[in-house]
Amino acid sequence: MRTAKASVLEAFNAPLRLHEYEVPAHVEPGAVLVRTEMAGICGTDVHLWQGQLPIHLPVILGHETVGHVAVLGEGVEKDWSGKPLKVGDRVTWNSAVSCGQCYYCAVKKQPTRCAQRRAYGIGYPCNCAPHFLGGYAEFHYLHPRTTIFKLPDELPTESVIGAGCALITAIHGIERTGIAWQDNVVVQGAGPVGIAALAVAKSAGAGKVIVIGAPSHRLEMAKRFGADAVIDLNELREPAARLAKVRELTGGYGADVVLECVGHPSAVVEGMELCRDGGKYLVLGHYCDAGTVAFNPHVITRKQLQVFGSWSSEPRHLQAAIEFLRRHQQEFPFHEMVTHRFTIEQADEALRTTATWQSAKSVIVPG
Amino acid sequence: MRTAKASVLEAFNAPLRLHEYEVPAHVEPGAVLVRTEMAGICGTDVHLWQGQLPIHLPVILGHETVGHVAVLGEGVEKDWSGKPLKVGDRVTWNSAVSCGQCYYCAVKKQPTRCAQRRAYGIGYPCNCAPHFLGGYAEFHYLHPRTTIFKLPDELPTESVIGAGCALITAIHGIERTGIAWQDNVVVQGAGPVGIAALAVAKSAGAGKVIVIGAPSHRLEMAKRFGADAVIDLNELREPAARLAKVRELTGGYGADVVLECVGHPSAVVEGMELCRDGGKYLVLGHYCDAGTVAFNPHVITRKQLQVFGSWSSEPRHLQAAIEFLRRHQQEFPFHEMVTHRFTIEQADEALRTTATWQSAKSVIVPG
Amino acid sequence: MRTAKASVLEAFNAPLRLHEYEVPAHVEPGAVLVRTEMAGICGTDVHLWQGQLPIHLPVILGHETVGHVAVLGEGVEKDWSGKPLKVGDRVTWNSAVSCGQCYYCAVKKQPTRCAQRRAYGIGYPCNCAPHFLGGYAEFHYLHPRTTIFKLPDELPTESVIGAGCALITAIHGIERTGIAWQDNVVVQGAGPVGIAALAVAKSAGAGKVIVIGAPSHRLEMAKRFGADAVIDLNELREPAARLAKVRELTGGYGADVVLECVGHPSAVVEGMELCRDGGKYLVLGHYCDAGTVAFNPHVITRKQLQVFGSWSSEPRHLQAAIEFLRRHQQEFPFHEMVTHRFTIEQADEALRTTATWQSAKSVIVPG
Amino acid sequence: MRTAKASVLEAFNAPLRLHEYEVPAHVEPGAVLVRTEMAGICGTDVHLWQGQLPIHLPVILGHETVGHVAVLGEGVEKDWSGKPLKVGDRVTWNSAVSCGQCYYCAVKKQPTRCAQRRAYGIGYPCNCAPHFLGGYAEFHYLHPRTTIFKLPDELPTESVIGAGCALITAIHGIERTGIAWQDNVVVQGAGPVGIAALAVAKSAGAGKVIVIGAPSHRLEMAKRFGADAVIDLNELREPAARLAKVRELTGGYGADVVLECVGHPSAVVEGMELCRDGGKYLVLGHYCDAGTVAFNPHVITRKQLQVFGSWSSEPRHLQAAIEFLRRHQQEFPFHEMVTHRFTIEQADEALRTTATWQSAKSVIVPG
Repeated sequence: MRTAKASVLEAFNAPLRLHEYEVPAHVEPGAVLVRTEMAGICGTDVHLWQGQLPIHLPVILGHETVGHVAVLGEGVEKDWSGKPLKVGDRVTWNSAVSCGQCYYCAVKKQPTRCAQRRAYGIGYPCNCAPHFLGGYAEFHYLHPRTTIFKLPDELPTESVIGAGCALITAIHGIERTGIAWQDNVVVQGAGPVGIAALAVAKSAGAGKVIVIGAPSHRLEMAKRFGADAVIDLNELREPAARLAKVRELTGGYGADVVLECVGHPSAVVEGMELCRDGGKYLVLGHYCDAGTVAFNPHVITRKQLQVFGSWSSEPRHLQAAIEFLRRHQQEFPFHEMVTHRFTIEQADEALRTTATWQSAKSVIVPG
Repeated sequence: MRTAKASVLEAFNAPLRLHEYEVPAHVEPGAVLVRTEMAGICGTDVHLWQGQLPIHLPVILGHETVGHVAVLGEGVEKDWSGKPLKVGDRVTWNSAVSCGQCYYCAVKKQPTRCAQRRAYGIGYPCNCAPHFLGGYAEFHYLHPRTTIFKLPDELPTESVIGAGCALITAIHGIERTGIAWQDNVVVQGAGPVGIAALAVAKSAGAGKVIVIGAPSHRLEMAKRFGADAVIDLNELREPAARLAKVRELTGGYGADVVLECVGHPSAVVEGMELCRDGGKYLVLGHYCDAGTVAFNPHVITRKQLQVFGSWSSEPRHLQAAIEFLRRHQQEFPFHEMVTHRFTIEQADEALRTTATWQSAKSVIVPG
Repeated sequence: MRTAKASVLEAFNAPLRLHEYEVPAHVEPGAVLVRTEMAGICGTDVHLWQGQLPIHLPVILGHETVGHVAVLGEGVEKDWSGKPLKVGDRVTWNSAVSCGQCYYCAVKKQPTRCAQRRAYGIGYPCNCAPHFLGGYAEFHYLHPRTTIFKLPDELPTESVIGAGCALITAIHGIERTGIAWQDNVVVQGAGPVGIAALAVAKSAGAGKVIVIGAPSHRLEMAKRFGADAVIDLNELREPAARLAKVRELTGGYGADVVLECVGHPSAVVEGMELCRDGGKYLVLGHYCDAGTVAFNPHVITRKQLQVFGSWSSEPRHLQAAIEFLRRHQQEFPFHEMVTHRFTIEQADEALRTTATWQSAKSVIVPG
Repeated sequence: MRTAKASVLEAFNAPLRLHEYEVPAHVEPGAVLVRTEMAGICGTDVHLWQGQLPIHLPVILGHETVGHVAVLGEGVEKDWSGKPLKVGDRVTWNSAVSCGQCYYCAVKKQPTRCAQRRAYGIGYPCNCAPHFLGGYAEFHYLHPRTTIFKLPDELPTESVIGAGCALITAIHGIERTGIAWQDNVVVQGAGPVGIAALAVAKSAGAGKVIVIGAPSHRLEMAKRFGADAVIDLNELREPAARLAKVRELTGGYGADVVLECVGHPSAVVEGMELCRDGGKYLVLGHYCDAGTVAFNPHVITRKQLQVFGSWSSEPRHLQAAIEFLRRHQQEFPFHEMVTHRFTIEQADEALRTTATWQSAKSVIVPG
């Protein structure tokens, strides 16, 4: 095969365009060429499509990808966790790589804030070789130093893509926040990040987990993942009603920990009120800039809250996620999240399905 | 003496009224009657005077007080730290007491959020006996279970009142936030809470401490307390200029820790930007509800901040504060904070001086 | 009924003696009289029986007890979590009470080290009224300030006693140690504390949990509670073999967290080696003084370990334990731990069964 | 200059031998050649000399070194903190480098336990080029990826060497342990590590710091560095007497934090007793294996201690140390630690002076 297909974002708010790019004949030392098996559509892709983040076009979207090793660059013998790597192996990888040397990497140990990070499917224009630097394509080129993980045979690709970057984002965020054993937890949002946060919270020692969201098919999914209670935004339409419900479910005090997985600024104002005094609040859903909200800082002082932010994730989170998915397929059926499948040619439709909350998770399966 | 003087808040935004109340003839078991030596005027007193907190009038203001034991109720033999207590001893005390048994006290270990707390000088109306439940008076009645501390002889009363509730508030807030050794710290505000936060930060291991505030006499005081740099709000009038200055002083990254000691919601928006990525922010100055501000939660996610609130303080903080003041009088001259003295009859003037930022700390010295 | 039976430890290493004591006719304000339903035999009871702790005799052993309220003292209307309490209610309680006021309670927040603590079944001689201050008896008198919990109807008494003080000890210890999400954990010991530590670790986010112990019926119980792997001391008889096995099961590095639930000093030396570098070690099983072991502190420096101790537990741990037991009866079948039942008259036999590791948990069921 | 001098450890417990090695004519890309200005003698050098650590000979000892850049390898333009680097600049560096990629570096964030670490002056035999891989020599070759720091002009070389690896070891250890504001601290040992721990503890927020050590000139140095009290091992010769003294100085409870900087196993047994219940203990002095001691683990459970180990340090600790030394020269006069100077030819004498505790710090100053 000399050329291969990719779906390319050339202009914001316009249909993606199908391109044929030359498949790299040469793979540099340390790099890997992968044949894409499945690529997830992330909510962030919708925001990128709509031009809400400052990126350089053209870009092949897709930062949640599983594929099979086609060519191993010189010197690549093992995956990041030390497992031997060979042609044909099924792999996934972190979409971004930190430098390991800078102020944020080495001094402050916040590698997700490394200034050198660029993400596949977001930060690499595709108009020059090696082109294939995003998931919506038949191939994916992995630069040297990409942190690659061989997937265990017993773990379906659907689990990995169904969990997507939502799971590793949730793992990092909840690591930063901390959930004490038997804490009562509220998850705001029942999309992929909310479902992932629910799974991590449950498995991290939470007592009761309450999910607030909509529409109903997402709340059903939340129950499938073990939510102890769900609150339907279409039923309790006022924040005051939801606050009353959460208090009723938590002995009158509010939740020990509230995890925001929504992305609307108003959710943050509501969410802090859902915390008990001295509780913890994670602002996880605001990867994009969704504007301002009228906010009263007195609530943080009076309730002596702890509020946390978390950005992206590290390789160690993906390593843990794979093991977690492998071990807990029954309890947390992430493979069931993959509800809608599309070809590369149907990438627009995949984005629209995601944008309108019709799917749990839409994916692209090349060829 | 059968009666004694008190300055009473009878109506918001109106002059205080001088009253004579009957001095308690009987002190119940566990209680203590104290003759007031000095009472501090806290910024919160100004807010109370202006009706910004929901309290029941009439009230004798004053929740920062030093006095001498006049009568010890039956069973009171020691102070909270176990030192013997006798008539004549100079003492101070926490203005509020937690129950020790409730959900917040015993389960969640957040005793400052105990529902039973009421503070002297704020939460006790003075129209019934024992009347003397605030600092702006010749006597102060201390209910059973009040946590009283005998003051060391070598510690001037001015140090204790100069530090006031600002110091213990700062100690608690910084305890909750955590300052790592040699962290760069910004203090927003150069009033009593800002100066106290500066002193605690410096003594808690901070590297460079930068104080942002006004007017200049307060910044001079900040330098006296060891500020490594000060930023005058009257010189750098725009948040962007102050951000640039803070970055310049912190290697281009922003501060590891920013301590808000202002009480204006806009300070919170500015302050989070002053943090480096992964930095910590303490909302300490918002004891009162000062309304809302347009706030973008994306900043918390993107910078993966940690934001903390802290409410009031515990007896152990006052115990530590007294020892700290005793030990560090040279380094942190809190006694110099007492710049303006008034009689009980001049309480209005004392409040006005505080309200207009003319004093570092105004105090009332009865008779 | 004017008198009731109790089994009394009058002399170390001698048979217990059956006594009839007068049932208290008067219950003081704040106190409660309970009719015992079931009392657990704890391993500590065996040590007490053998005179390994310095206690004053005679004592009614038994500090894990469930009973029904017979008489409520004046003023007792609610249990510790605020639920209404009435005669007939099934209850359990903490065996010891902290003062809430002292240096360890209020300054250092280590209430389990309060100097005023005395435990039912251990620290109260029974030769004066109200006599009934231990579990091996038909009645139990609860002093004022005892932290009592009404049990939910759906929670069997066997679950509460099967978990016993082992569960709350493990909850406290693991709280102090901290288990990060998906940590690999080793539990040393498969007795009641080991099984409880396993359950808490699994539910607190551990990944793989490996239990090292004997005899085989205890390891079977460990599997029943979800152990991912067990190591039989009778099969791998040398520490080096067990270390090799643990390393094999943990990617070659050792466990992130090792929980010592054995009580033999040599287990501590072995256990630290089972940790990966930078790992955590909890010394939980050494409630009794079992003597010294040759120990090389270099291991702590070289492996940069974190080692934790934990003593007894707080009321909030019992509150959480009850909710945990109620919620997870299927996953962690503590009721199955109750394998051997005895009458008060058979208390000696119950102790012997416990001492020889024949039972998972022996209990006394009066009359 | 074609050759240069080095003092070489060829055989344990034998005199060092003076060698002339060829100065590298070629410096590989990323490497740096430094002309040694001063090299510190560390207590570990004595242990190495005595054959107590398993190293490959011949070795040029010396892992605390300051020098001037002689040749910059291609591509080296900045130091680790981003300051421009040029020939002639005075620099220091970390003696060991972690890989940044392995399990301990990237997954567990314990880079000091990276398996690839080798330390200058310890782990590099000097019999092949580039030979100069230790401090006791006229030149020092720094491999690519060595973390180099340009020294500020106002910071004397004596400060850097006087602090030596003891300071960064103490910084790391105290970071791991945590000292709460106004904690009472005991430092066991008054050698370089003890003095450094004292300085870090004082500057990290400790209240009272008590140093236990000998001989008297070291305790005088401790006072010079701000010790609030010292206990002379030659005066209070029994552990019980020292425990009594520490309790007397800490309100009867023992210290909140005890820092072991001795290296004798018996110090660990004594030190845990010096902690209050719930206190923290740092095993910092056991870089070498000094054998076992009879130890009772019950103390850890009963006192519910937290015990920490810490191994070596990271580049960020050296960066912070340099800034700390620059800022606090008056308060913590590390330059005064340099009490004895020797030439390269006198390296044996330097080691003997260190071994017999005659010096605070011995140094080698080439020609």
